[in-house]
Amino acid sequence: MQRVPEIAAFFRERDNFLLATHVNPESDAIGSTLALLECLRAMGKRALAYDRDGVPEFCGFHPLKEEIRTSLNGLDTASMTLVLLDCNSPERANIKDINFRQSIVIDHHVTKSAFGDVSWIVTKAPATGMLIYALVKEFGVKMTKSMAANLYAAIAVDTGTFRFNNTTAESLRAAADLVETGAEPGRIAEGLYENWSKGKFNLLFRIMGSLEVVGDIAITHVNALMFAETGTKPEDTENFANFPRGIMGINIAAFFRETAPGEWKASLRSKDGHDVSAIAHEFGGGGHINASGYSAKGDYDAVRDGFLKTAEGQRQEKR
Amino acid sequence: MQRVPEIAAFFRERDNFLLATHVNPESDAIGSTLALLECLRAMGKRALAYDRDGVPEFCGFHPLKEEIRTSLNGLDTASMTLVLLDCNSPERANIKDINFRQSIVIDHHVTKSAFGDVSWIVTKAPATGMLIYALVKEFGVKMTKSMAANLYAAIAVDTGTFRFNNTTAESLRAAADLVETGAEPGRIAEGLYENWSKGKFNLLFRIMGSLEVVGDIAITHVNALMFAETGTKPEDTENFANFPRGIMGINIAAFFRETAPGEWKASLRSKDGHDVSAIAHEFGGGGHINASGYSAKGDYDAVRDGFLKTAEGQRQEKR
Repeated sequence: MQRVPEIAAFFRERDNFLLATHVNPESDAIGSTLALLECLRAMGKRALAYDRDGVPEFCGFHPLKEEIRTSLNGLDTASMTLVLLDCNSPERANIKDINFRQSIVIDHHVTKSAFGDVSWIVTKAPATGMLIYALVKEFGVKMTKSMAANLYAAIAVDTGTFRFNNTTAESLRAAADLVETGAEPGRIAEGLYENWSKGKFNLLFRIMGSLEVVGDIAITHVNALMFAETGTKPEDTENFANFPRGIMGINIAAFFRETAPGEWKASLRSKDGHDVSAIAHEFGGGGHINASGYSAKGDYDAVRDGFLKTAEGQRQEKR
Repeated sequence: MQRVPEIAAFFRERDNFLLATHVNPESDAIGSTLALLECLRAMGKRALAYDRDGVPEFCGFHPLKEEIRTSLNGLDTASMTLVLLDCNSPERANIKDINFRQSIVIDHHVTKSAFGDVSWIVTKAPATGMLIYALVKEFGVKMTKSMAANLYAAIAVDTGTFRFNNTTAESLRAAADLVETGAEPGRIAEGLYENWSKGKFNLLFRIMGSLEVVGDIAITHVNALMFAETGTKPEDTENFANFPRGIMGINIAAFFRETAPGEWKASLRSKDGHDVSAIAHEFGGGGHINASGYSAKGDYDAVRDGFLKTAEGQRQEKR
């Protein structure tokens, strides 16, 4: 991986770090942060870790999770070096107006800001955990069982345990090494995927019940009432957009979420090269060929009909 | 891996092979068979592949799938060497009374028979594909893109794409190597998991609707009527036993399937070390601590009540 020696030198030459990651963190954010924290301390450095929202319940299996603080009160941040992980703007980590001595960004998302005295953004890396893995190896610090578990979880979650097409040979090889060091794939997958609330389960059931198939298009939705009746929130629907894509003969899956009364977020997913980005563009949204989204206002039937009309119209043009 | 040179020598010294795998094959059976077939042919050997049931629709993504024949008619099997893959008794491959010159068994399941002039059974291997991978490397045959895809699928399906606790560092490292050779993890995962019939989707919906939670026990069931109304069969429920285990607070998931009028198969799954094998034993069944099963007769309510009574009784004894 490029620039690893340079980034390692940045850390070696400094002390007193604050590791911060994005709000609403998941296992790549938490795992990368905790593994780097442990590594820096093993090098004799002072380091603390911060996330505004702390460790969510569904990340409860991460070793050392108690090291993540949710407040910066009492810290002399002006004397600390900020390490911004798995995001690249201070807003995403809720540290916008806080002053640090210096800053470094380590991320794999497309840059949204030019923040950071040093910025190490590798968009090809499937997870920030891959970057931390490379750093730990470069430092020559002994990989502990807890570091291995944190990094394995980070890489696993962002590749869907090696199911997504961002999975690389390098990420599988890192995973192999981490398993050898003591990461337990079965336990980590259980931690990652077997933590649904009863409400989330009921919500999926309700959403499955909303399935409508029109040709090769599957449509599902969730409205405010369904959230209220199951005691769930929009963030509980993560990945729900994907599942009807799994039905044979379905090429496009559209999922509509009511985020406020009469306001909808559409998530479009496709397979086999069917393009859903053009549909999203039509509604002022964006994304990739096989994953895109947009916002719409109105009652559900109108939003749904608008989508279908555009989707079918675009396909007729192509013929 | 042990014995690889010896097994490789067995193949090098022979010619004219019939590769056979079990009835109702899945991706480990199909992928292992096709990769070995291609490898042997690359070595200049004559080789054919057989499966009674051919390649099921959900394995449609396997390269070279058209090479699998469903009949042995017209073959002089008595002059051929049988290679029995991913199973270890001729009954499982529907070749019980057929005469071969010699036979070798390559499998990772616990032996049920002493069949085979040579038997290479590695129960620690997460997939038969891992054994074929080791063989191809030992032969020094160039790994093609199609061999890589077939072997990756074989290893991926039997480890749940590296989610099950049979996942080893060796299997992740083999996967990395196969990706480097051209296996595409995203496409293969799509092939493996995104092939549900509409009926299977509806069936899962119905089964989710049957969910009942009693303390930390989740109970679901499917009866003959639900199969009939969704146009599905008992084999469409593969892995359905697992999913309620994913709900927080659930330690035991029990799934009851009606296999004939008034005849039920119970599948029990647990997490965090909760023992379901003792419950299954009570009903004359068997299995492991975290995955067991048994058969029962009667109407659903009686079968369900019998299970609950036993499960709760055993737990009270422990206290």
